[in-house]
Amino acid sequence: KQMTGKQSIQFDRAPHIIGSSSVAGKKEGEGPLADAFDLICSDDRFGEDNWEKSESTMQNEAMKLALQHSGLFPSQVRYLFGGDLLGQLIATSFGMENLDIPLFGLYGACSTCGEALSLAAMAVAGGFSDYAAAITSSHFASAEKQFRFPLGYGNQRPLAATWTVTGSGAFILGQKGGHARITGITTGKVVDFGVKDSLNMGACMAPAACDTIYQNLMDFNRQPSDYDKIITGDLGYVGQTILHDLLKEKGFDIAGVHMDCGIEIYDRETQDTHSGGSGCGCSAVTLAALILPKICKGVWKRVLFVPTGALLSTVSFNEGQSVPGIAHAVVIEHC
Amino acid sequence: KQMTGKQSIQFDRAPHIIGSSSVAGKKEGEGPLADAFDLICSDDRFGEDNWEKSESTMQNEAMKLALQHSGLFPSQVRYLFGGDLLGQLIATSFGMENLDIPLFGLYGACSTCGEALSLAAMAVAGGFSDYAAAITSSHFASAEKQFRFPLGYGNQRPLAATWTVTGSGAFILGQKGGHARITGITTGKVVDFGVKDSLNMGACMAPAACDTIYQNLMDFNRQPSDYDKIITGDLGYVGQTILHDLLKEKGFDIAGVHMDCGIEIYDRETQDTHSGGSGCGCSAVTLAALILPKICKGVWKRVLFVPTGALLSTVSFNEGQSVPGIAHAVVIEHC
Repeated sequence: KQMTGKQSIQFDRAPHIIGSSSVAGKKEGEGPLADAFDLICSDDRFGEDNWEKSESTMQNEAMKLALQHSGLFPSQVRYLFGGDLLGQLIATSFGMENLDIPLFGLYGACSTCGEALSLAAMAVAGGFSDYAAAITSSHFASAEKQFRFPLGYGNQRPLAATWTVTGSGAFILGQKGGHARITGITTGKVVDFGVKDSLNMGACMAPAACDTIYQNLMDFNRQPSDYDKIITGDLGYVGQTILHDLLKEKGFDIAGVHMDCGIEIYDRETQDTHSGGSGCGCSAVTLAALILPKICKGVWKRVLFVPTGALLSTVSFNEGQSVPGIAHAVVIEHC
Repeated sequence: KQMTGKQSIQFDRAPHIIGSSSVAGKKEGEGPLADAFDLICSDDRFGEDNWEKSESTMQNEAMKLALQHSGLFPSQVRYLFGGDLLGQLIATSFGMENLDIPLFGLYGACSTCGEALSLAAMAVAGGFSDYAAAITSSHFASAEKQFRFPLGYGNQRPLAATWTVTGSGAFILGQKGGHARITGITTGKVVDFGVKDSLNMGACMAPAACDTIYQNLMDFNRQPSDYDKIITGDLGYVGQTILHDLLKEKGFDIAGVHMDCGIEIYDRETQDTHSGGSGCGCSAVTLAALILPKICKGVWKRVLFVPTGALLSTVSFNEGQSVPGIAHAVVIEHC
C-alpha cells in the first residue's frame, strides 16, 4: 500500500533523479548561486526577439542539458511534465515542441516544479514510463508583462514584493541511477486565507506551505528533525516568517531546518530584490544547482522540497478575488 | 509491462469510471443533447456576477453532482485533476477551492479532459489513489473575453470558427464499479503544422488528432474498426474533413466510425454555430451526457475518446506565432 495518511504517497519503488540542469538569467548569474548554474544567459534574451520566445528557448536549453546529463535521447523519455507561469503555458508549448515527447501541460503557479516532479515520479513508480521528465520555467520580463506593469514604466516595488526569477530547471527521472531519489510526495490543496495583496505573495502562499508541510509530517509520522532540510519554493523573507509562525501554532518549530529557494537565489543587500525571488523557475534552478548536489553527495540525507504557488491571474485580481495558495511537497533522499 | 508501443499505456488493472456529471449552459441546453445533461443553467451566470465566477460555480456544481452519482464524499477522493481555458486556471482554482481535495492543475487547452482522465487513470491504476477525479470546463463568455472580442462588440465570426461550449464535465475513477473502464491511453505531443488562423481551430488541431489516433492504432496494433467509435473533442466540420484526409494519407479510413463532440453538441442549422462547438467543456459534457451512457449500456463496446487542444494565447497569437495542437486519447470500454 503506497497511499500514506491523508494526501501522501510513499513509493514502493522510489524513482531516481538521474539527471538535472539549471539555466538562469543575468541577474541570477550575479547572485550567490552563480557558480552552480549550468548555463547563464548574459542578456536574458537567449537569442530571441521577444520575452516569451526567450523563455521557451531557455526551457529548451534546460531540457537538452538535462537529457545530456542523463545520457538519454529525447525519444527515450516517454512522458514530459512541464509548465510555466504564462497564460495558456505558451513558454512550455513552444519550448518543448521540437523535442517530440508526449507532453502533460501543468499549471500550479510557482508550485509547478513540485507538481511536475510528483507526477513524473508517479509515472515511473507506477511502471508507466522508464524515463519521465519534469521541467518548469519563469522569466522576469515575461512575468512582469503577464502580471504586473510594462518594464519601461519602472514602477516602484513594495518591500514585501518578490523578484521573478529568470530560470528553468529540468529533471529526468528513471528507475535506477544517480544518487537522489523521490521516496514520497504530499500533494497540496488550494488554501485561501483571503489575502488580496498580489504584491505580497509570501503572505498568500505561506498558509498553503504550512498546510502541506504539516500534512506531510502527519502522513509520514515524522518530526521536522527527520529532515535535514525543509525547503520551500519562493516564500521569501516575509512568507518565511509567516510560515514559521503558522507551524508553531500547530506545534512544529521548523526554523532550524527551514530554507527558502527565494531567499537563497539572490543577495538581498546588493541585488535589491526585497523579499526574495519567486516564479516556478526559482525552486527549479535552486533544486538543480544547490539542493540536488548536496543530496547526491550525502551532505543532506533527506530533504522535503516544497514549491509554493500563488493562484491568481490579472482577471481574478482585478475582479477583487483573493489570492489562494497551493504547495506540492516532494521527499528527496540520498541513495 | 503496461507500456505499449511508443507513447501508450495498456493498464494491467483498468480503472473504472464510477460516476460522472454534465452541467451545461443555456445554448447547449437548447441543442441536441438537451435531455441528456444533468443540469442546465438558464442564463449562463450560475448565480454569479462575473463570467469567471460563473465558470467556477459551474465546475463546482459538476463535481458535486459527480460525487453524488458515485456515492462519495469529497474527502474520499485522494486526488483531483482539473483545468480550464482561462489564464492561470482561475476557473478551476476557485471552483475546486471549497472541496478540499489535493489538486493537480492541468492545461492542455481543449484536450484537457483527455489529459485529466489519463492522469487520474494512472493515479488509480498505479495504486496511488482509491478514487481520483477529473474535471474540465469552458464558458462561452469567459473564453470570448480571454481570447477574442468583448461580447458587446458583436463581431462577425468566420464560417470556420467554432462556438465555445458553456459546460463542465466531471468524472470519478475508482478500482471497481460502474460499466465503463479506461483500458488504455495514448498521450499526445505538440504538433505544429504552422497554421496561424486562430479562428480556424479545427485546422490547427486536426494534425494533432491525426498524430495521436495514428499512434494509438500503431501502439495497440488496432484498426479503426476495432473501435465502435473514434470520437474527437472539438474539431468541428472543418477539422473533421482535414482529419479524415490526413489519416487517409497514412492509410486509415476512419470516416465510418468517426464522431466529433463539437459537431454533436449543437444543431448547426438552427443554432448558428458555424463549424461546431469547442472548449474543454465540449468533450467533457459530451462524454458524460452522450458517450458514457452508450458505453455503459453496451451499445458501444470500445471507444477511442480523443479531446483536441489548440495551444495559443493572445500573446503568442499577437506575436505572430503559429497555433500548434495537442490531442490526448483515452480508450474506454464497456464492462
